[in-house]
Amino acid sequence: MSASFETWRDRFERLRAHKAFELTVITIIVVSALLIGARTYEEETNRFQELILALDTAVTVFFLVEILIRMAAERRLRDFFRRGWNVFDFLIVTASLVPLDDSEMVLLARLLRIFRVLRLVSMIPELRMLIAALFKSIPRMGYVALLMFIIFYIYGAIGSFLFASVDEQLWGNISVSMLTLFQVATFESWATAVLYPVMEDYPYAWIYFLTFIFLNAFIFLNMMIGIVLDVMQKESLAIELENGEGEAAVLHGLRQDVSQLREQLDRMEATLGAGRGDARVDKHGGD
Amino acid sequence: MSASFETWRDRFERLRAHKAFELTVITIIVVSALLIGARTYEEETNRFQELILALDTAVTVFFLVEILIRMAAERRLRDFFRRGWNVFDFLIVTASLVPLDDSEMVLLARLLRIFRVLRLVSMIPELRMLIAALFKSIPRMGYVALLMFIIFYIYGAIGSFLFASVDEQLWGNISVSMLTLFQVATFESWATAVLYPVMEDYPYAWIYFLTFIFLNAFIFLNMMIGIVLDVMQKESLAIELENGEGEAAVLHGLRQDVSQLREQLDRMEATLGAGRGDARVDKHGGD
Amino acid sequence: MSASFETWRDRFERLRAHKAFELTVITIIVVSALLIGARTYEEETNRFQELILALDTAVTVFFLVEILIRMAAERRLRDFFRRGWNVFDFLIVTASLVPLDDSEMVLLARLLRIFRVLRLVSMIPELRMLIAALFKSIPRMGYVALLMFIIFYIYGAIGSFLFASVDEQLWGNISVSMLTLFQVATFESWATAVLYPVMEDYPYAWIYFLTFIFLNAFIFLNMMIGIVLDVMQKESLAIELENGEGEAAVLHGLRQDVSQLREQLDRMEATLGAGRGDARVDKHGGD
Amino acid sequence: MSASFETWRDRFERLRAHKAFELTVITIIVVSALLIGARTYEEETNRFQELILALDTAVTVFFLVEILIRMAAERRLRDFFRRGWNVFDFLIVTASLVPLDDSEMVLLARLLRIFRVLRLVSMIPELRMLIAALFKSIPRMGYVALLMFIIFYIYGAIGSFLFASVDEQLWGNISVSMLTLFQVATFESWATAVLYPVMEDYPYAWIYFLTFIFLNAFIFLNMMIGIVLDVMQKESLAIELENGEGEAAVLHGLRQDVSQLREQLDRMEATLGAGRGDARVDKHGGD
Repeated sequence: MSASFETWRDRFERLRAHKAFELTVITIIVVSALLIGARTYEEETNRFQELILALDTAVTVFFLVEILIRMAAERRLRDFFRRGWNVFDFLIVTASLVPLDDSEMVLLARLLRIFRVLRLVSMIPELRMLIAALFKSIPRMGYVALLMFIIFYIYGAIGSFLFASVDEQLWGNISVSMLTLFQVATFESWATAVLYPVMEDYPYAWIYFLTFIFLNAFIFLNMMIGIVLDVMQKESLAIELENGEGEAAVLHGLRQDVSQLREQLDRMEATLGAGRGDARVDKHGGD
Repeated sequence: MSASFETWRDRFERLRAHKAFELTVITIIVVSALLIGARTYEEETNRFQELILALDTAVTVFFLVEILIRMAAERRLRDFFRRGWNVFDFLIVTASLVPLDDSEMVLLARLLRIFRVLRLVSMIPELRMLIAALFKSIPRMGYVALLMFIIFYIYGAIGSFLFASVDEQLWGNISVSMLTLFQVATFESWATAVLYPVMEDYPYAWIYFLTFIFLNAFIFLNMMIGIVLDVMQKESLAIELENGEGEAAVLHGLRQDVSQLREQLDRMEATLGAGRGDARVDKHGGD
Repeated sequence: MSASFETWRDRFERLRAHKAFELTVITIIVVSALLIGARTYEEETNRFQELILALDTAVTVFFLVEILIRMAAERRLRDFFRRGWNVFDFLIVTASLVPLDDSEMVLLARLLRIFRVLRLVSMIPELRMLIAALFKSIPRMGYVALLMFIIFYIYGAIGSFLFASVDEQLWGNISVSMLTLFQVATFESWATAVLYPVMEDYPYAWIYFLTFIFLNAFIFLNMMIGIVLDVMQKESLAIELENGEGEAAVLHGLRQDVSQLREQLDRMEATLGAGRGDARVDKHGGD
Repeated sequence: MSASFETWRDRFERLRAHKAFELTVITIIVVSALLIGARTYEEETNRFQELILALDTAVTVFFLVEILIRMAAERRLRDFFRRGWNVFDFLIVTASLVPLDDSEMVLLARLLRIFRVLRLVSMIPELRMLIAALFKSIPRMGYVALLMFIIFYIYGAIGSFLFASVDEQLWGNISVSMLTLFQVATFESWATAVLYPVMEDYPYAWIYFLTFIFLNAFIFLNMMIGIVLDVMQKESLAIELENGEGEAAVLHGLRQDVSQLREQLDRMEATLGAGRGDARVDKHGGD
């Protein structure tokens, strides 16, 4: 029975990996997502929309059957939930199954329908790889985020300490100041709406803002370069290793060849010496 | 006759590839484009402009003759339209030929004249290469665009769900919300015109905006790094292969040399052993 | 006694390097920083906050003891202050010790408390490395900054010379003009608030702004590429050297093997020639 | 006499290349530039300023003497003006010498004084290298600029064709439209001030703006990657060549060693064969 499950799982996997099937399902999901989005402002549906929504239900059923088979194929149910992508798929499929009668909790039901678009992620291997890459770069980003937080925190404290009297809305307390500084970091109206009002009271406030902007740009630049180099180094190491191994193998072979040559020469020299020795032993007493 | 066409095609191609000719034609096209552009606000023409427009007509005729010869040189007309650039050239030249009497359909005629500037692309090989590179990177970009669409769609749904009551103009429905989010993604007035009005009703709305901005920046960064590495890897692989091949050839040659040495030694050992054997066969019974 | 100090220093270093301890201290510092920040707008404290602030005091004491032991472990106190990070740690710890009675100099006391968050930098090795990398890239950035200053200065002079009559606030003198140009360089309201008012009087002012923006973008791009290449080159040189050394060693070994082969062959040839010579010396007179 | 000039030129070059002298002159130039800038709004001078301006005059005289010696050291004056940097230095020094009596043509005189800051460029070798790198990347940028111009031109034409009725100020004619599009490309108020007013009349105008923004971002990204890869490829080729040459030399040496081994073996085999031949010629008739 386990074998039959695995056959079914293989069939589903093969079907899912098929390009034409993949494209069809992606189209259905995107179009139905657009339709659900569109229904936030137009309520009537026509025949084409009904077809798409029926196909969307078919896709939901397909995913449900597929995930059930994948669950049944595991020896224990607990093993299924060990892999993050399985949990993700399970949640998306479950959320797709919540009945939507549009009478009560309409808005929540709608949001759940919206999240169905995430099935695209569990559907397309390239998107899973992109997401996996994002997760892998989180620890690397963590320290930069911490450094950024320290800078925002200190500048926020100084800002709320100095400029609170200028504009209570922007500099009233440390958290509001940090939000204002984030606005400055994105360059959004940082001069016209933030710097110039402050400079009317504190003419040297530009030092505060310019150091903040340069510090941010500096760290951002260093971070980007660091990440690029980090990934690059790994890549080139991998390439070098691969190439190096190929070359190293050839060089190793060469050394073996040469040492075999030497063994042969040793043998020949011994033979030669022996021959010579036979003939000359009385003359020179060996060489 | 096919040979004479090919001679003509070669002549045109050589003329087109000539640097001085290329520069002259580029200058004529750019100046006539600027003149056509200028005529959207000044209607009188002077002698210099007339000269340029006459030269522009000459360029059009040159392109027409050149494309006709290229078409005639093909065995079947269908083959000509198989290559994308031929279709592009054909459309541009045809559009240049539409009679412009400025009396009726003036605006459309003007737009057609504007598109003549695209002849620059079919004229300059470097621009064709740039465009070809753009087309090549489309599939790679496609998946990132899809991921972006998913994020915009979900945030747009949540935004229209939560903030529609705050500003109907910005958050009225999911498509308007997605446009507002695109504005936020470009940092255009995202704080002063979008975030602060929302925060008056929803004080924790900054979480929504900050997560959106970080997610976007994160994906953008990963995408850029991914593309750079992708292209880089191919480049360095090509370089390594090239270098590796050179070196591999030398190493291969060395191994062959060494194995020839061994054959020679084998031969010599056999000779030596034979000689020794002749002399010592009765003594040691061979070695 | 020096040995016991070193034992203690080792213990503290091991404790500091311990992941669980590191995470606990980071959490305490961040949470207490957030609490101090929060107290800029809410004054009452509850039991949880009291606990955190007590833990924060414990962290301060820990850092104090640790730094005292590190100072005692040095042969001379002067040696301790030679390393920049020691001075940094000392200042942070000292600033953490300033008594905060909230009655007088409240604001200064609060700012000092804010700076305690910098203990995170001296705590986490990854942040120290990030900061060290920032310091290392300062000289490289210095020349670009100087070039930028020259461009800003010249454009600022021209701007204050031409546009002072248009808007005294933005172009009144050279320093105000340079600030306005920095605003333009960050693209903040550069068209709506800066360019368009100027263009009403000087219709060709767009040339001034566009050349400035392109020049900036150009230098920024070149700088970024320069930095990336600079760091990359060092990396790849290091990799090549490492790999090269390994391969060079193998090749060196091969050459030695081959030269030993030759010595052996020389010996054999001599033996052979001697034997031959014995037999043929009267025939050929040697070979 | 030519020798004495060259001695002087060498002395000046050594003095100019001296780090302490370089730093002193840079400080004098920057401070005097700041002072001249400051004098656009405060007219009184104090003793410190007088000192600096006197030092600045000394620097001007130094540069004058240095350039005169460099000119005299050339065999013909024409050779001096062949190198771009010499012309640049000559113009800067000449402009520094224009008498500034502040009574007539005050503003022009001031601008000339401002340009003195460019002496920094001719002073610092690192800045000369930066500028040279900028000039080298111009042809590479030229084609991208041309492609950008084509896109701006076509979108500008369509924009002025469609939206002229909405806002005459922003879309009145093709050149104004192109400026508006440049504003859009820098994301400055592109949504609030440009897109939304247009969308009131043309609800689908977002397609025009989004395609324009994506096309620009796309080309910019491709250009950046192209440049990075272009420079990188040259770098890595240079490194590979260098390394490759070293390794190739070792491998070449190895092959020579091995071929010498073979020659020796050939000689030995001949000797051996000859000996054998002597002994066995009657038995086997040679080998």
